[in-house]
Amino acid sequence: MTQSKKEVGIIGSGLVGSLLSVYLAQRGWNINVYERRPDMRKVSGLAGRSINLALSDRGWKALREVGIEHKIKDIAIPMYGRYIHTQDGNSQFIPYGKKDQAIYSVSRSGINMALMDAAETYSNVKLHFDTRCTGIDLKTYTVELENEHHQKKTIQPDLVFGSDGAFSAIRLSQQTSTDRFDYQQFYIDCGYKELHIPAGPNNSFLIEKNALHIWPRGKYMMIALPNNDGSFTCTLFFPFEGEKSFAALNSKEKVQAFFEAEFSDAVPLMPSLLHDFFTNPTSSLVTVKCYPWVYQDKMAMIGDAAHAIVPFFGQGMNCGFEDCSVLNSLIDTYKDDWKTILSTYQALRKPDGDAIADLAIANFIEMRDLVSNPVFQLQKKIEAHMSTKYPDVWIPAYSLVTFSPHIRYSEALQRGQKQEQIMKKVMQIPQIETLYEGEEIELYILNEIKAETN
Amino acid sequence: MTQSKKEVGIIGSGLVGSLLSVYLAQRGWNINVYERRPDMRKVSGLAGRSINLALSDRGWKALREVGIEHKIKDIAIPMYGRYIHTQDGNSQFIPYGKKDQAIYSVSRSGINMALMDAAETYSNVKLHFDTRCTGIDLKTYTVELENEHHQKKTIQPDLVFGSDGAFSAIRLSQQTSTDRFDYQQFYIDCGYKELHIPAGPNNSFLIEKNALHIWPRGKYMMIALPNNDGSFTCTLFFPFEGEKSFAALNSKEKVQAFFEAEFSDAVPLMPSLLHDFFTNPTSSLVTVKCYPWVYQDKMAMIGDAAHAIVPFFGQGMNCGFEDCSVLNSLIDTYKDDWKTILSTYQALRKPDGDAIADLAIANFIEMRDLVSNPVFQLQKKIEAHMSTKYPDVWIPAYSLVTFSPHIRYSEALQRGQKQEQIMKKVMQIPQIETLYEGEEIELYILNEIKAETN
Repeated sequence: MTQSKKEVGIIGSGLVGSLLSVYLAQRGWNINVYERRPDMRKVSGLAGRSINLALSDRGWKALREVGIEHKIKDIAIPMYGRYIHTQDGNSQFIPYGKKDQAIYSVSRSGINMALMDAAETYSNVKLHFDTRCTGIDLKTYTVELENEHHQKKTIQPDLVFGSDGAFSAIRLSQQTSTDRFDYQQFYIDCGYKELHIPAGPNNSFLIEKNALHIWPRGKYMMIALPNNDGSFTCTLFFPFEGEKSFAALNSKEKVQAFFEAEFSDAVPLMPSLLHDFFTNPTSSLVTVKCYPWVYQDKMAMIGDAAHAIVPFFGQGMNCGFEDCSVLNSLIDTYKDDWKTILSTYQALRKPDGDAIADLAIANFIEMRDLVSNPVFQLQKKIEAHMSTKYPDVWIPAYSLVTFSPHIRYSEALQRGQKQEQIMKKVMQIPQIETLYEGEEIELYILNEIKAETN
Repeated sequence: MTQSKKEVGIIGSGLVGSLLSVYLAQRGWNINVYERRPDMRKVSGLAGRSINLALSDRGWKALREVGIEHKIKDIAIPMYGRYIHTQDGNSQFIPYGKKDQAIYSVSRSGINMALMDAAETYSNVKLHFDTRCTGIDLKTYTVELENEHHQKKTIQPDLVFGSDGAFSAIRLSQQTSTDRFDYQQFYIDCGYKELHIPAGPNNSFLIEKNALHIWPRGKYMMIALPNNDGSFTCTLFFPFEGEKSFAALNSKEKVQAFFEAEFSDAVPLMPSLLHDFFTNPTSSLVTVKCYPWVYQDKMAMIGDAAHAIVPFFGQGMNCGFEDCSVLNSLIDTYKDDWKTILSTYQALRKPDGDAIADLAIANFIEMRDLVSNPVFQLQKKIEAHMSTKYPDVWIPAYSLVTFSPHIRYSEALQRGQKQEQIMKKVMQIPQIETLYEGEEIELYILNEIKAETN
């Protein structure tokens, strides 16, 4: 180790903060992690919330790098495709990619606890719970902390990482105390609510285990991800206001009638539907963009603190893990030159954070349109045909993002936009609705790709 | 007066807060205005800063409504056009509009003090200086205040108006304590610095008094607005970083050489240039957009707190004054129904605030391109010709914004965009650079306008 020993403060022991602490612990530095919540491994109510996430190749790459891939594999369930449930009660399985390509269902608390356990195997990592960061003084790089008894203290580590999530206190300090901090937070008009499909007898899965279930319905949708105990965590994405909305479903009768009409095949599997609907919170979905992410050679934001995104590409956690991986490789390259490490981290990751935020919003819109727009459905059919027949030439943006961790998000976005431009031309070909299976269309698309590449 | 008497708290006694207090005082309500700064009428340093603003028709309309137009006319200097200073030392006067159409140079502190004086003519208005708002509790509508000795107190008026500027504490409370608050702040890559041209003998004006002087230079520019004492307040808009930038001009020699090369005709008029350049601050230029602006029937943001914009359309103050005018007319219409008053205020003004923010950014880009892009220069020449020959058919966006207070900003933006689309087609006509003065082009444009209107 040619690097000098560092005192590192990490704000937030969520998914990204915990993983980052493992990465940096392996360099022998002293790592203190400050988390405003109690230790979720000791508080049953917190760990019990079964929010599910989809872990994909970018996330696995980071877990592999720190040597804990196998621990997470034990608690992850592969999902090889989407299982689409139509309104009439039929269903259809659509693979995500090639054979064996999968995304993995993990519970947020499960993977977070595994990461905390991994961090604590290092004697040079200390997790401090019930310790809220109230801000950072960027003139002196002093982090202000407060415990659950409102006792304050300050720390001045060599390096500070703000992994304190979408509502980051570190970021708010930058917004309120520095000049020329660009900041944006915006919400989509849909919120979400967690619901539940319990396990069958002997922890059996009552619907296909190895799939991400989707009930797409235009302006709203429900999804379900498998848990290890045989249950599924469902999420209803639904408008806050309007004719069909959280605001409108204000009685048990209305909820029951709505679900029976829209998700008829799921209702018999959801015995606690009405209880869950009126007990579980309705949560909002924010996108956060900001700049700068780093301060000189002392401070960087990472994960949701730098780039909170909506969940419709399943990349929030994966993007945060990739932040850690990129940062780690830059530390390898630039050793003790933290000014260069942090500015390069920002230069690389800011465009990628923006790209995945935009892709996630676009996917939200696409998921809504998928069921309601016949032209768009035809377009997707043609694209699927192309990627099956020419898998190395026509790679959908979803595959680039999910299964191609060597391709940057920003490049995936650009390539997706080029494909979209080609498809716009294709969809304007007269009588495309009858011609679309012919070889002429294939040739047309292949020529367009060739023209783009030259 | 059919309305019940209200206790009103206004946060900030800047231009908009002071004007609003006058509007509301005329209804007989009790108005308390809380201002974090000391009283600028008593602190020489504050009033002495000679930032200048351009008051135009929307601002005058509001001042007329509260009956203080004449007081402001006394301290305002009409500017009938732009006085363009080219790099070779030549100059050209370009009228803003028709004969007698002018915008008016006023000093920020001068108009602010006049508005405070006007407010204090009402016994039911009280201005509280050195009283900082630290936030608002939106559950109880309790405003938290702190005086210069850090003594805290709270107030609970019937109505709260946040007129506390681009870095509003009222807005920050919404951002940090409410769900689904959309917020954006972004900076352009140029900052500004105030400079000075003193008066000549006997308070004479050394350059044309009744004009807004511009030295456009592509990536940067200087402007100068007249003051009543014969002096001019100059503002240099200049990149923060780069080859020619605030960062690069780091010695007296470099500043002197730069100004002599770029603003040769101005340098002899600026004896304190080097002192001013290194003494006056370099300030940044922010745009702020947010939503919602109002809370139920109790709170509204107004002026820069709701919509800070860059100064390149000269509309920041005018837009804030128009906010007050619109709000006032809604109080006339809806009497005591504050839920409707505030939601209608927001529904009307949010799109207009967004529109003038976008127009101001577009003007920043236009001002830069004006001198460097020959195609764009030709386009502007054609537009100027059209608006001179057909003044009722082709009204430039600048005139719609500046001299047409009956047309909403959002409509001005839309009409400007339509004109821009027409001009894009015109500029693609083969050999337009030789044909542009011919009647065919005129006819083409008139036909396009007709087609748009149908």
